[in-house]
Amino acid sequence: MLNPVRKASPNFRWEGVEPQRYKTQGEAPFRDVSRQVLFEVAGAQWRYFEVAPGGWTTLERHAHPHAVMVLRGRGRCMVAGALHELAAHDLVEVAPLAWHQFRASADSPLGFLCLVSAERDRPQLPDREALAALRADAAIADFLDGR
Amino acid sequence: MLNPVRKASPNFRWEGVEPQRYKTQGEAPFRDVSRQVLFEVAGAQWRYFEVAPGGWTTLERHAHPHAVMVLRGRGRCMVAGALHELAAHDLVEVAPLAWHQFRASADSPLGFLCLVSAERDRPQLPDREALAALRADAAIADFLDGR
Repeated sequence: MLNPVRKASPNFRWEGVEPQRYKTQGEAPFRDVSRQVLFEVAGAQWRYFEVAPGGWTTLERHAHPHAVMVLRGRGRCMVAGALHELAAHDLVEVAPLAWHQFRASADSPLGFLCLVSAERDRPQLPDREALAALRADAAIADFLDGR
Repeated sequence: MLNPVRKASPNFRWEGVEPQRYKTQGEAPFRDVSRQVLFEVAGAQWRYFEVAPGGWTTLERHAHPHAVMVLRGRGRCMVAGALHELAAHDLVEVAPLAWHQFRASADSPLGFLCLVSAERDRPQLPDREALAALRADAAIADFLDGR
């Protein structure tokens, strides 16, 4: 039997867990994001993502929901056209087809756990119309531009 | 739409999350354990358990697996007849039908996230024979006795 315990290593790494690419470069826009898959059990995949200071995840949506807990650092997220400050242990639920993006603060990483169904649809990127609708809110436009 | 973000409160509580009884008193032996259900998504239930210093969860087994991440404090767990020290961010996978118990240190709480399938079987308690088999190992007997 495999050892049931995998110890945490310094700096949010784990024994037996290899950091992976967040996405394939060129597949979608993002900056400075790493991904580690911690568990695949009960039909779910439990991952840890870390966004480096100033980095951001892809602006996207999909039919599957996300359950997120911030584990480290600070940042903000946009979910369904609203902005939220994030700090350690905050919970985020991304509803089906809600546009969302996570951004780390300029001076802090943003590390978070993210639970998804193992079977899930591919993310969609916003078309010009969807992007214009989001950017119609000046605060959202600033957020998307990293301001 | 409900607010997608629920902020963490001090001391491992969350906005909109009510601490619940771990189990009904008398249903199974345990000591000083609280339970908070953080998410119910993707066919999974994502909970936070906290065991007070010196406390312990029920010694039990079940067909559904557990995926666990320690979030706070220190303690030990017994999984399938082996003991493991636990500290923040360590990962534990409890395989189907593995006997398991979590114990907080005498001087520290042990708080952990635990992911299970929303649909799952009821835990089984050890009968006299199963308990004797576990206690045949002196270190396990000491652990189960809180030594």
